[in-house]
Amino acid sequence: MANRWDTGRTEAFSDGVFAIAITLLVLDISVPASDFHDLWRGIVNQWPSYLGYVTSFLTIGGIWMAHHGLFRRMRYADQNVMRLNILLLMVVSFLPFPTRLVAEAVRDANAERPAVMLYGFTLLATSILLSALWHSVLRDRELLNPDVTDAEIAAFTRLATPNIGFYIVATVLAWRVPTATVVLYLVIGAGLVLRAPGDRQSAVA
Amino acid sequence: MANRWDTGRTEAFSDGVFAIAITLLVLDISVPASDFHDLWRGIVNQWPSYLGYVTSFLTIGGIWMAHHGLFRRMRYADQNVMRLNILLLMVVSFLPFPTRLVAEAVRDANAERPAVMLYGFTLLATSILLSALWHSVLRDRELLNPDVTDAEIAAFTRLATPNIGFYIVATVLAWRVPTATVVLYLVIGAGLVLRAPGDRQSAVA
Amino acid sequence: MANRWDTGRTEAFSDGVFAIAITLLVLDISVPASDFHDLWRGIVNQWPSYLGYVTSFLTIGGIWMAHHGLFRRMRYADQNVMRLNILLLMVVSFLPFPTRLVAEAVRDANAERPAVMLYGFTLLATSILLSALWHSVLRDRELLNPDVTDAEIAAFTRLATPNIGFYIVATVLAWRVPTATVVLYLVIGAGLVLRAPGDRQSAVA
Amino acid sequence: MANRWDTGRTEAFSDGVFAIAITLLVLDISVPASDFHDLWRGIVNQWPSYLGYVTSFLTIGGIWMAHHGLFRRMRYADQNVMRLNILLLMVVSFLPFPTRLVAEAVRDANAERPAVMLYGFTLLATSILLSALWHSVLRDRELLNPDVTDAEIAAFTRLATPNIGFYIVATVLAWRVPTATVVLYLVIGAGLVLRAPGDRQSAVA
Repeated sequence: MANRWDTGRTEAFSDGVFAIAITLLVLDISVPASDFHDLWRGIVNQWPSYLGYVTSFLTIGGIWMAHHGLFRRMRYADQNVMRLNILLLMVVSFLPFPTRLVAEAVRDANAERPAVMLYGFTLLATSILLSALWHSVLRDRELLNPDVTDAEIAAFTRLATPNIGFYIVATVLAWRVPTATVVLYLVIGAGLVLRAPGDRQSAVA
Repeated sequence: MANRWDTGRTEAFSDGVFAIAITLLVLDISVPASDFHDLWRGIVNQWPSYLGYVTSFLTIGGIWMAHHGLFRRMRYADQNVMRLNILLLMVVSFLPFPTRLVAEAVRDANAERPAVMLYGFTLLATSILLSALWHSVLRDRELLNPDVTDAEIAAFTRLATPNIGFYIVATVLAWRVPTATVVLYLVIGAGLVLRAPGDRQSAVA
Repeated sequence: MANRWDTGRTEAFSDGVFAIAITLLVLDISVPASDFHDLWRGIVNQWPSYLGYVTSFLTIGGIWMAHHGLFRRMRYADQNVMRLNILLLMVVSFLPFPTRLVAEAVRDANAERPAVMLYGFTLLATSILLSALWHSVLRDRELLNPDVTDAEIAAFTRLATPNIGFYIVATVLAWRVPTATVVLYLVIGAGLVLRAPGDRQSAVA
Repeated sequence: MANRWDTGRTEAFSDGVFAIAITLLVLDISVPASDFHDLWRGIVNQWPSYLGYVTSFLTIGGIWMAHHGLFRRMRYADQNVMRLNILLLMVVSFLPFPTRLVAEAVRDANAERPAVMLYGFTLLATSILLSALWHSVLRDRELLNPDVTDAEIAAFTRLATPNIGFYIVATVLAWRVPTATVVLYLVIGAGLVLRAPGDRQSAVA
């Protein structure tokens, strides 16, 4: 006897958490009043905030697209999937904190390395949890919709797995070149958005 | 003549409130600028914030899972259910305040006891309201879907009821050992996530 | 030729705005660090914040219940309804600002009157907009579901209309007894929750 | 072979982001404690915050109405639409930052021009992305519901296109008369709300 959950309301709740985490990122961008005498320069000076904003936004957006793709192909969730999903949401919701830390620390020689590495560990954790969620679904084919093809399964495995490697490599690099690594995280996040498989394939080119 | 509400939009609204309350928790985590000269240490120093974050996240996540399970089994809501639901949402939305207070107070010998006890009272209130919501549904079987079994009803009663006892015991303990009690709240919250019954049972092991 | 909107996604968007506005209220509650040496007292000292929180929470919750009831009975929205709905959401979203102002000002003899009156004007505006939305629906019966009875229409008119009077009276009173008036607003908000008509009537008592 | 996405969950996620971005705007309105001795005056003094709040609220509300209208007419989304939608949400979520900047800078002769122009560039970007999203749908008619008429297509093109011109003109004006330009942005945003085509036409006048 195994517990089964319908996925509809879990998707709605997860969408809410993703949407809020992605939108809260803007609260951490501000220009200090002392920069108002030359505001163009003050706006440009906030580039680390914009870099963090775009990186975290694209990463959460990409995770949302992958999450959407997974749940669309599921008929039920079981207890492992529900638990891993709560953990995934917990880590995604945490992301605004290291994002803010990176934006504050990126021009501080002492602080940038720990900030970027904490950010990288958080991204790595989202990637591991997303992959674990997917493998947890694959362990019990009854959880999938009957019409999901092997090609679709392979596409999601290709999407979820390599990011773990990318984030490990990037976070090692962060030890040496923290600021450049943030740009690398941006590229990985953008890749997640660009590579997300659709809900179905159309025969029309 | 009794008023009846469809549950669909109440679920959507409740999901929104749960998702936002759970996501706002991260706004209260930050490292003071004075800790940036040794940021690894500064990050570690924020452990009370992480403890509060994880505890409140798991607790709200567990309440959401129980709420989802209850409403899935309901055909209609009546006025009592609607009112108790608004009260439950009011207390869940309030949780970020005592969470923040615990994180700020946990290393302050004068302040930790009141902070942890206020946190415990809030958790106790969520637990009492969830249980009251469930018993309010049970009082009028017409509110339940016709296919809900007695075993499912018993499972929800087992899920909702003992937490009230746990929270009372824990909050008494908080008078003596406040910090250790927060860990206990974490365990109770995690238990709620782990024990939540699924939407249906599958015969496949 | 008249424009028609399906109500599904408007309800979803409105639910999101209500859920967020209601949840943001907690961000304005905090105990200053100077009160941590006697935190029980510090917690009690924040009573104006709790009063504001509960009042605004119940009021928004009651507006949500009324909004839900209206939209459930509508088949389509027209342009007036869509515009009035955007205005209603704009005023509801604004409510956290006067709520915070009341909480800060309630013990300041100079400031409490303007704060409570601004709060009252905002509540009055939500009430007028909700009533206008309802009357805008009534002007074109084609917007209503065909099975809506005259008794249901009368019930909503009774729900929406008298609050305008209550808020006008209360806001005049605020000129004399601002703090007591906040309690009156709390009673009006709770009344909105308690009086909301259900989605249907059941013959079972 | 082309990827296809169902639009339901994308609409839900986008609605969440729009609802949150629109609701976060209120967090930036506050009266400094130094203005509490004459709070009526303190409340009036915040007029730039209210102007920014109403302008951004109506603009996001108008974008939401247009977005809703577009997605209602779509059968599927393809990869371009998904990517442009993520970018559109990223820019809409960013809007609270320049809104706050305008409110802070509008009475500062040095700062108002950069603040208003940054605000204008952000509005221009939303307008370009919304138009690009629409043209991306038009490039592949298979993405549209089969019952969408040419008149509806023309109505959306008329809605989306001229705003780009309006925002370019307004942002050039901002160089000369920044405060007056904010009022112009308000008019453009209100126009978006007023001009949004409905989901269908009704023969009843």
